[in-house]
Amino acid sequence: MSGKRSPLAPEAFPDLPALAGVRLSAMACGLRYQGRTDACLVELAKGTSVAGVFTRSKTASAPVEWCRRALSGGSARAILVNSGNANAFTGAAGIAAVERTAKALAGIIGCPRREVFLSSTGVIGEPLPDERLTGALGELERRLSATAWRDAAEAIMTTDTFPKGATRRVEIGGTAVTLNGIAKGSGMIAPDMATMLAFVFTDARIPADILQRLLVRAAEDSFNAITVDGDTSTSDTLLLCATGAARHPRVVAPDDSLLKGFRAALGELMADLAQQVARDGEGAEKFITIRVSGAASKRAARRIGLSIGNSPLVKTAIAGEDANWGRIVMAVGKAGEKADRDRLSIRIGGIEVAHDGAVVPGYEEALVARHMKGREIEIEVDIGVGRGRATVWTCDLTHGYIDINADYRT
Amino acid sequence: MSGKRSPLAPEAFPDLPALAGVRLSAMACGLRYQGRTDACLVELAKGTSVAGVFTRSKTASAPVEWCRRALSGGSARAILVNSGNANAFTGAAGIAAVERTAKALAGIIGCPRREVFLSSTGVIGEPLPDERLTGALGELERRLSATAWRDAAEAIMTTDTFPKGATRRVEIGGTAVTLNGIAKGSGMIAPDMATMLAFVFTDARIPADILQRLLVRAAEDSFNAITVDGDTSTSDTLLLCATGAARHPRVVAPDDSLLKGFRAALGELMADLAQQVARDGEGAEKFITIRVSGAASKRAARRIGLSIGNSPLVKTAIAGEDANWGRIVMAVGKAGEKADRDRLSIRIGGIEVAHDGAVVPGYEEALVARHMKGREIEIEVDIGVGRGRATVWTCDLTHGYIDINADYRT
Repeated sequence: MSGKRSPLAPEAFPDLPALAGVRLSAMACGLRYQGRTDACLVELAKGTSVAGVFTRSKTASAPVEWCRRALSGGSARAILVNSGNANAFTGAAGIAAVERTAKALAGIIGCPRREVFLSSTGVIGEPLPDERLTGALGELERRLSATAWRDAAEAIMTTDTFPKGATRRVEIGGTAVTLNGIAKGSGMIAPDMATMLAFVFTDARIPADILQRLLVRAAEDSFNAITVDGDTSTSDTLLLCATGAARHPRVVAPDDSLLKGFRAALGELMADLAQQVARDGEGAEKFITIRVSGAASKRAARRIGLSIGNSPLVKTAIAGEDANWGRIVMAVGKAGEKADRDRLSIRIGGIEVAHDGAVVPGYEEALVARHMKGREIEIEVDIGVGRGRATVWTCDLTHGYIDINADYRT
Repeated sequence: MSGKRSPLAPEAFPDLPALAGVRLSAMACGLRYQGRTDACLVELAKGTSVAGVFTRSKTASAPVEWCRRALSGGSARAILVNSGNANAFTGAAGIAAVERTAKALAGIIGCPRREVFLSSTGVIGEPLPDERLTGALGELERRLSATAWRDAAEAIMTTDTFPKGATRRVEIGGTAVTLNGIAKGSGMIAPDMATMLAFVFTDARIPADILQRLLVRAAEDSFNAITVDGDTSTSDTLLLCATGAARHPRVVAPDDSLLKGFRAALGELMADLAQQVARDGEGAEKFITIRVSGAASKRAARRIGLSIGNSPLVKTAIAGEDANWGRIVMAVGKAGEKADRDRLSIRIGGIEVAHDGAVVPGYEEALVARHMKGREIEIEVDIGVGRGRATVWTCDLTHGYIDINADYRT
């Protein structure tokens, strides 16, 4: 948790209402940090269904592997999250720590082990002192409350500069349901790892297989559409839990028309959380929205958007408030997707600077320069070869990023 | 051309001997820079065969497209290179400029147009004032000399902090042949593009089709094994020209045993030039060699090496002299190649810090810390799943990179 709040942070943590079937608590277990909470327990009502998306890393952490296996059961009764130690690259000791923790948690909750989910974020390669976590379980259970959303969001932070939460309310077949979510982003304290964790809850009644399809689809345009530095954590975890407390009509498929509003709200909430993560990227001074259109496919548009969003040259140009569209062209070219140099058009802050592969003569440079001085940068790229569209969010690359990550020890 | 010479530069420009069939000249045409040369002409003897490798960018520049077409003829009589303007993203005007320049150059040399090759590096999106180039051709031709290698290497620089050259001598069937090469690297002045250009010459007598195969193979372990920031220029160009002046026995295939020494020398010379490019990466303070072994294939090893070498987290850790092997694990995991967390081993400066997926208890941290303070950083990663090997070279990511590329205009 670094000192200065990101200049791109929202005004305040939103007001997350109680959600039937979910209780939370947080406390300090002294895993690594001093004077702050580092563990969060979420208790879920019986019958809660669960869906999950995890890091694609081939060196995923022991807790991620645990969650992947537990997910096959489709139901969840508890989530225990700790910050300060990622329990990643810890070999057999890490697996044993996960098993001991899951056993203790299942005992406290009174459920099968495969209904408990574990997430860890923080330093890697060091053994997790799991006895501190399991020793705190009794107290965490006593503290459970329906309203501790902000406490939970704070306990899972590492070098995040603000806690991240979002809420939406929507109807399914005339019955109101709530969606609440918390997330932590890519901050890091050497030698910690950047890790994205997000936990989304709803009182809707949705079977696990349908929930999984909804989650994967919504992740595509939210958490899979952001990038800070293109690096991938060993621990990225996104869980969606549906307690089923709401008495709406039964839903039977991901495309069920009853779920129309729910799908939109889930997508919005997840995009909101994902954007908060990008707004808290290390050293971020500007929030960048990249809209790609005219690509060969949606997938191609996403890849081009990420190529622009991951380009150190584009990101440093924006840090320098330089409308360097040449670097955007470069990033389009290197994405490897179909592109035609002479059909490419680029807008910055709504002003067309390049059209059909050449600079727009006499474009309003002063307007573009003013846009570049702002906190919110808009880049639109039309590839001109198809109908694929995607939006990607990222932040600029600044001296702050180097300061945070180089940890100049000398 | 920035002021401070990279701390990773070689002692001096090497002594490149005359090479039968090659004459060079350089001069200042005032394309963009003041008070320095910005054009270089290379004249090649009749019968010179040529091979080329170009950027994979889908938005390649007009000169790159010209070279790709000219290459099909297999022979070269002249190369004209300019710095200061990349003639990229210049639409129909850019193509016309290339055609006018090629016509004028072919006229001066007295050869078909498809035997002339053009390369441009510098600002993109601005029309190339090709009349300044063509107007200088007469003087460039008068100045041709067999020894102007360093002049040529300097004329093609953009923000390179030192000129790059290399030479090797080897025998083909008992006859001595020479290899000379010059290159420019990835420096950039906003809003210029980073561009890698390299031109390699030999007096060996090698048909174009064989030369092409030799070049592609050697590029794999040299120019395709370096990275500064993972960005790809619209203009990257690598040409290999063989004048055929040496009277060695005829070579009939890329695998010809007569070429054994030549293949090795070509590989070494190209690796030397490529490493010089990485040593002159923007803001570079440390030169990093990443050796990957035990991968599923050579290709997998290269991809893992580039994933490590392109990771901003790894590069900033090294800038901070922090032996952060956790970030190396992360970069292995995100490469997408086969890996087994629990078989991975990592050495830094020759010291094993992680073995079979866990930290080596009590490894000599002081020795590793001393290594991290040096200019030359060695990282070895054994994936433990196969026999694929590759080496990748890169540099660290420092405040200097941000300074150069963010161009804080405010």
